[in-house]
This record gives sequence, structure tokens and C-alpha cells, in this order.
Amino acid sequence: MTEIGCPFCNPLERIVKSNSTAQVILSDPRKIPGHTLVMPKRHVEKPWELTAEELSDIYALIFDVEQKLINGKLGDGVDVRQNYRPFMQQSKLKLDHVHFHVVPRSLEDYIYAVSEKYDTELFAELDDDEREAVTKLIED
Amino acid sequence: MTEIGCPFCNPLERIVKSNSTAQVILSDPRKIPGHTLVMPKRHVEKPWELTAEELSDIYALIFDVEQKLINGKLGDGVDVRQNYRPFMQQSKLKLDHVHFHVVPRSLEDYIYAVSEKYDTELFAELDDDEREAVTKLIED
Repeated sequence: MTEIGCPFCNPLERIVKSNSTAQVILSDPRKIPGHTLVMPKRHVEKPWELTAEELSDIYALIFDVEQKLINGKLGDGVDVRQNYRPFMQQSKLKLDHVHFHVVPRSLEDYIYAVSEKYDTELFAELDDDEREAVTKLIED
Repeated sequence: MTEIGCPFCNPLERIVKSNSTAQVILSDPRKIPGHTLVMPKRHVEKPWELTAEELSDIYALIFDVEQKLINGKLGDGVDVRQNYRPFMQQSKLKLDHVHFHVVPRSLEDYIYAVSEKYDTELFAELDDDEREAVTKLIED
């Protein structure tokens, strides 16, 4: 299942590492040096449609990359992020083929300085009505 | 392996859903309504120390929660994020017990307006020297 024109189905010489069902490429453009993408080889758009083997292969690569980025001093820690955003049009910065960002992080790094420092403003206490409504939605 | 004083090892009445080795709680404080946390029951601090069963159980819950948040109209999409940040002190907003944030998202939502709109400034082209250095670090 390869989608014509999907850059992640046809990564050509960009593959840095792979296993049976998953592959690693470097993000380009990238947020910070070491910003890496791990994804299934198969064109999957909804994360919950990944097979057990794909999920396991993806995380084998993520865990390997995380430790190498830290050992290689590109960060003191690492964030992993997977965005499912069907409300955005596919573009150079948004591809529909499921992928996991692996991003080296350090204290008050460039990402923090440019955008993440605003994150703390977002947090608010969970009130009782919201707790009840979200619990009811999720628990079943 | 339960760490005394770790709120995620001792979540008490906060558990919304669980399976053999993983559990779901609501983030409190939260960034946006529906902000949920999925984590192993066991106190694991390094993500690559999760067992295959824990990873599989965690993602069974993540995939379930993602679809419920979207079906329940809390978002049109969803982000999943796992931060490994040993460089930060444990606090109310930073816990060492590995956890995955599941966050409902929509076009130009509150998270975008407050912090994420600055993210696009971060991206830069990957130059040849950087590509070579990062590839060498990761490929082996």
C-alpha cells in the first residue's frame, strides 16, 4: 500500500535506518539538530490502524534513536510526538502518512525559547463538571 | 515496583480506565478539555525500559481514548506526546513516571493561539553537514 506522491512512501535515499515494517528519516526542515521522524513503511493515516507489528517496530527504532541522540549529546532528554490532524491540509510541514517526531531537548533550549515557554499559560485546574463529562466519555 | 510519593504510582480514585499493565487518568491541571494521560502502572522512568506488553497496553488505551475524544467532539484530531526530560526537576507539572499525553486538537485552537503558532519559526532547512553528522550518529 504505497501512495503515489507521498514523500514518506517514497523516501528514496532519505532512509537512515529501518527494520521489517518501519523506517527512520531526518526531518527536513527540522526544528532543532537531531529532529528525526520514525514511521511505518506502509501508508497508514489513522494511528489506530497501525498493526501490532508496526507499532512494535516503530518503537524499537524510536528507543534506539532516543538513546543515540542523548549519547551523542544532541540533547539531555527527548520528546516523542505523533500528531493526528485531519483538519489540516497536507503541505510541506504536514504529511498524512503517520509519523512520530523524535526531538532532542535540553533545559531552556531553542524550542523552549521560541514557543514552549508560552505552554505554562495553557494549564488550568480541571473542575468537577469537566472531570465528570470527560470521564463519562472515556470510561465506558 | 511502586515509588512512594509518586502520584502516578498511587493515583487512587483518578483512574478512568485500565488494562493489565497500563492506566488512564485525566490531566489535572490540563491544557485543554479532554487532556488525558496514559501510563504504565509500573514506575518506569526511561521510556526504552517499557516492556513490550506495557507498550502494547499503553497504545491500546491511547488508541481507544483518541477515538473517543474525536467521536465526543472534543477535537477534530489529537496529539500524542511523551517527554523524557531528566534535566527538569520533578514538580506538579513534571513527573518522572513515564506518561503519554493525549490532547484533542482542532484548527487554530487554544493551544495554537497561545503557544504553537510560534512553532513554525523554529523550522530550518537541514544542511549537508548536519545531515551527515546526524545520519552517522543514528545509522550504525
